Amino acid sequence: MPIVQFAPFSSLVQPSLWHKLSDLKIDVLKLSDHAISITGTYSIGRTVKDRETGREIGLPCNLSVGAEGFEEDHKPPHGSVVAVGSLKNYNTIEEFKAADKTALFNAEAQAIWDHVLKTRETSQLNRFLLITFADLKKYKYYYWFTFPAFVAKPAWEIGEEGWKSAAEELSDEQHWVQLRAIHAKLHTQTPVLPYFLIKKTPSAEGGVEIAPVEAYETFYASVPPEQQTIAFIDPSADPSNPGWPLRNLLAYLRALYPASTSRLRILRWRDSEPPASPNSGWKSQIGVLIQPGGEAAASTEGRPSAVGWEKNPQGKLGPRVADLAPMMDPTRLAAQAVDLNLKLMRWRILPELDLDKMSSARCLLLGAGTLGCYVARSLMGWGVRTITFVDSGKVSFSNPVRQPLFEFADCLDGGKPKAETAAAALGRIFPGINATGHTLSIPMPGHPIPPNAASQAQAKADVEKLERLIEEHDAVFLLMDSRESRWLPTVIAAAKGKIVLNAALGFDTYLVMRHGARTSSLSKGKDGKPHQRLGCYYCNDIVAPADSLTDRTLDQMCTVTRPGLAPIAAATAVELLASLLQHPEGLFAPAPPPTTNQTSTSESQDGLNSVLGTVPHQLRGFLNQFRTMPLVGAAYDKCTGCSETVLKAYETEGFPMLLKAFNDAKYLETLTGLDKLYDEGEGLLESVEWDEEEGEGDDDF
Amino acid sequence: MPIVQFAPFSSLVQPSLWHKLSDLKIDVLKLSDHAISITGTYSIGRTVKDRETGREIGLPCNLSVGAEGFEEDHKPPHGSVVAVGSLKNYNTIEEFKAADKTALFNAEAQAIWDHVLKTRETSQLNRFLLITFADLKKYKYYYWFTFPAFVAKPAWEIGEEGWKSAAEELSDEQHWVQLRAIHAKLHTQTPVLPYFLIKKTPSAEGGVEIAPVEAYETFYASVPPEQQTIAFIDPSADPSNPGWPLRNLLAYLRALYPASTSRLRILRWRDSEPPASPNSGWKSQIGVLIQPGGEAAASTEGRPSAVGWEKNPQGKLGPRVADLAPMMDPTRLAAQAVDLNLKLMRWRILPELDLDKMSSARCLLLGAGTLGCYVARSLMGWGVRTITFVDSGKVSFSNPVRQPLFEFADCLDGGKPKAETAAAALGRIFPGINATGHTLSIPMPGHPIPPNAASQAQAKADVEKLERLIEEHDAVFLLMDSRESRWLPTVIAAAKGKIVLNAALGFDTYLVMRHGARTSSLSKGKDGKPHQRLGCYYCNDIVAPADSLTDRTLDQMCTVTRPGLAPIAAATAVELLASLLQHPEGLFAPAPPPTTNQTSTSESQDGLNSVLGTVPHQLRGFLNQFRTMPLVGAAYDKCTGCSETVLKAYETEGFPMLLKAFNDAKYLETLTGLDKLYDEGEGLLESVEWDEEEGEGDDDF
Repeated sequence: MPIVQFAPFSSLVQPSLWHKLSDLKIDVLKLSDHAISITGTYSIGRTVKDRETGREIGLPCNLSVGAEGFEEDHKPPHGSVVAVGSLKNYNTIEEFKAADKTALFNAEAQAIWDHVLKTRETSQLNRFLLITFADLKKYKYYYWFTFPAFVAKPAWEIGEEGWKSAAEELSDEQHWVQLRAIHAKLHTQTPVLPYFLIKKTPSAEGGVEIAPVEAYETFYASVPPEQQTIAFIDPSADPSNPGWPLRNLLAYLRALYPASTSRLRILRWRDSEPPASPNSGWKSQIGVLIQPGGEAAASTEGRPSAVGWEKNPQGKLGPRVADLAPMMDPTRLAAQAVDLNLKLMRWRILPELDLDKMSSARCLLLGAGTLGCYVARSLMGWGVRTITFVDSGKVSFSNPVRQPLFEFADCLDGGKPKAETAAAALGRIFPGINATGHTLSIPMPGHPIPPNAASQAQAKADVEKLERLIEEHDAVFLLMDSRESRWLPTVIAAAKGKIVLNAALGFDTYLVMRHGARTSSLSKGKDGKPHQRLGCYYCNDIVAPADSLTDRTLDQMCTVTRPGLAPIAAATAVELLASLLQHPEGLFAPAPPPTTNQTSTSESQDGLNSVLGTVPHQLRGFLNQFRTMPLVGAAYDKCTGCSETVLKAYETEGFPMLLKAFNDAKYLETLTGLDKLYDEGEGLLESVEWDEEEGEGDDDF
Repeated sequence: MPIVQFAPFSSLVQPSLWHKLSDLKIDVLKLSDHAISITGTYSIGRTVKDRETGREIGLPCNLSVGAEGFEEDHKPPHGSVVAVGSLKNYNTIEEFKAADKTALFNAEAQAIWDHVLKTRETSQLNRFLLITFADLKKYKYYYWFTFPAFVAKPAWEIGEEGWKSAAEELSDEQHWVQLRAIHAKLHTQTPVLPYFLIKKTPSAEGGVEIAPVEAYETFYASVPPEQQTIAFIDPSADPSNPGWPLRNLLAYLRALYPASTSRLRILRWRDSEPPASPNSGWKSQIGVLIQPGGEAAASTEGRPSAVGWEKNPQGKLGPRVADLAPMMDPTRLAAQAVDLNLKLMRWRILPELDLDKMSSARCLLLGAGTLGCYVARSLMGWGVRTITFVDSGKVSFSNPVRQPLFEFADCLDGGKPKAETAAAALGRIFPGINATGHTLSIPMPGHPIPPNAASQAQAKADVEKLERLIEEHDAVFLLMDSRESRWLPTVIAAAKGKIVLNAALGFDTYLVMRHGARTSSLSKGKDGKPHQRLGCYYCNDIVAPADSLTDRTLDQMCTVTRPGLAPIAAATAVELLASLLQHPEGLFAPAPPPTTNQTSTSESQDGLNSVLGTVPHQLRGFLNQFRTMPLVGAAYDKCTGCSETVLKAYETEGFPMLLKAFNDAKYLETLTGLDKLYDEGEGLLESVEWDEEEGEGDDDF
């Protein structure tokens, strides 16, 4: 008698599986290669008609796995059977290749066997293992399935009649009624029973009863063997070869009921829908399987040997590759790639890093010059999605070599507007960015607004636009090339409680600082102590900001700095923001005290550090010695930029107060009382003209 | 009798003047606003025929000034008269506007007058002053000429016959012969005499003699006044109004020869070419000028009043503007703008800075990733003109947000090659750059070359290409993402005596260093002491570089760093090169000793500093504390990268030696003797696996 050949499972992986695996890998698994649970499904094997020959061709015995396989309570599609499995993702292609396939396989086979013996259940009979390596940089997924199947010794043979149509075989007279009944009973269950027992029961509807295989002893207690029909949902559409699930079912039966199972009447259930014509068209088949040697064959103890690694499309035992790159939307690919690079930080180095705090920070960049361009680039590197530029200038020929969002073409025909052009460049770099540019002149103290209606209205509109922009953002970067242009945003941002990062360049020195947050006597840190009120850009000044732009020579108008200074200062400002946002107290993060012992480790400063380290108040860089110096400066109660006097006057009076500050050189000094200080010659302070960024902080040296 | 009206000079500025002034301003004048000498020229006034009316129209009395006016021994065009003058360029538009025009004018007028009285010469009579403000960022030139002309009181009147054709007036019979003779005598002189005296001398050729005005007393000693004819080259083509030069000539004559000059016969010489027809077509005119009041008028002492600021095209006393931007080649504009920004450093801050040392340095960037892109940008900022990239990769979707020479579009269709794409980006930023890219895999120790002919030939070709590239450049930047890929260029560059800058990133730390130069016992510093041999990237290693690339997890394959780290490290590397190149000992510049007193001023370290400051050997940056630490490491005589043993083996054996290093993990350790060290367990060194950039230097902490 011919030996029964079984049709193996053939994996069918939905692309959704790989997308989901990518997400899991990046966000959950990270470096773990522990196996995780996954489920697949299979259903009755389908045939298609060959267009040329008109013959029915059976499709492979697909075991389909998709993203939903990771869901714990996933409901399979109607008529499908769930197969449980596990997925083991390797960290490197080398590990994937070097994995001990024999050991992995044996462990799986053993798990199935142990489960059978322990629980007498069939739920793990179609258990599978999927090993993978996900090349997330290239969207290539290497994978290999194994579907362990136990090898019967001796092999099963099929009775002389072979596989016959169930409609013929099941009952000579009432086959249609019976099959209909089996169908109805089977398919009302969800998930469908993968294996079931059938017996004739004239009193039952359709004359048959069915039960799970687990009920074998009770259900067939008084049924003679020749009337027992054991059925399974057959994923194989091949007329002679039943699918893999039968193979393990046979092993299961032989292991648990060795006495009665060396000859079995098997129904390959293959009718997902009953045929239109009552008496013909049933696809299910029945055959009698015999294991030669009878009971003796099952008496050998221990687990039978097993096979099961899937062959690849080349017909070899080896992994398959899914290359998803060509089918992915490039914009989405870019977004995922950028995300990935950031999320990798959390795998090994900083699991506690909260990337969303940075990427969700809406950043307003006042100035789209050398600093503005470099700040935007580092922000993009951190995944920041909302970047807004404000600038009043146009791209000039000297800009592109120092301002990394502009090109030569942007300088032609008088130059494109910088803010809008920088925003457009961000879009070209990363389509997922939300970047906008506003050409806007920021009114400044020392630059009086001409006393005509149009100029006043323009200034008012400019102020309102700036107020709105600051309101709509979380962090404001002051990146302009003059001192006085920083005043208005300093005041507005302080009043609105926004984060302010300030960067200014000298020839080979820079200042990067965060403005202190407005505090009240009620605001306290997590340690219960009142918040320290740190200074702003103007806190060390003893005169109000004034016109420094008029009457400048060429070398004062241009950015005369060592070219490496701007990228260093800009990146430092962005990293300062990153550290600030990671600090539990955010805007109120305390500044580390200046320390002469620069080698003290950060660990000794509990409460000061974010997960990214210290959050300094000010940093002064000196490129002539490649040195950086952290500084701390307290807020000054006569400060023209952030003192309560100034903020309250702004909040109470609004635009008219600002107008006074723009027009009247002495207004801010009178308001804050700086003028009295000056008149009285208090202290030894003198009004000295410093280079742009050296106007404050010098006392700290 | 009608008062004589004079046609004033009209300035004609050649664009070459502005280009030359730009150069002078940037390279020579810088912030100086001292007046500098300049000459202009004028020639006989020309007429053109009005196309519609057919009438001759006189062109303005042009005084032309161009770039050649700055040349000391400039020869004017044939037939032109030189006018001396001075140019005073202001630093700011405000200073230009606020300049005291009256004082400037009076000083010029006085200078002319003083010169006349002191020297009795006419050479300064047409002296002019040009004040300017050059907006070199926008190529706009504001300028204002003054041509001081003395006002005669009372005014000169012209005789009843007015201006008559010289051909009619000069001689009733032989006018043609005489004019021909005057022409011949006058125009053989170069420069042409602006003023000259004529007398009839029958024995002379043509019957006339001419002499410079300075010879007035002797030449006319025996000539009756009615036979004296005083001539001048007249830039005015107006039939009734002689040009401005006559005005000052009259003042000169009245001042020096008051007794004989209240009535003068004046020849307006206006024939640059004698007419074709002998007796007609002469343009020169003769008239008799009378100053009413005779001798008395000249007896008033002191300088007559003067006028002379030129009116602008709007007919107002005010400056003119030359806007050269629209007529300039944008590529040239860009080149000038970039140069300008750099040269400004020398104006005030660092006059001794040698920009050429930096801009002429040919830089080879091994690696066109995050570091490579940022390094290239800072190099461009410094004016470096030759930048060559080597990379074997393609642009991937995660690159553009961190690698500032790539855009989203570069990632499509599998990604463009990085090296060539980065080079193309530089060209888009600055068309004057000489940028190229080479897709090349650098062979590495620990990555054996497959033992087949094709692979061996490929490796040999790759090595030769790298050798050639290093040979052709002055500085080599090591900016790759693995340790072992830096080995081959380290060896080649050390052997060839090239500058090597090395940058490597950790998560929030970086290393930037310069490799020490190969020294011999003969090589000594300027102080006579032997050169210090500083270490290379491998000098702290106790094992040879090996395969660190295979078997890496995703977070090890990608650049998992704080995004601000790369711009900081890259810019630091470029600034280190800048400081090194400015140091008088260049490649051999000594490293400043590590100092705990970080606030010591750089001035105290004589001989150590370049004009840009110190030239550290190694810099380690720690972003978690925003701190940078300078380190010094000596060369190690067992170093696998730069020891004499390795360099000599490479120089002697060539490619076969390299091949051994690639293929045999132990070769370099055996060659250098590191293996013995290791076997003997000398010291407490251990082979520890560090993160990429933390493999060395840790002993220095």
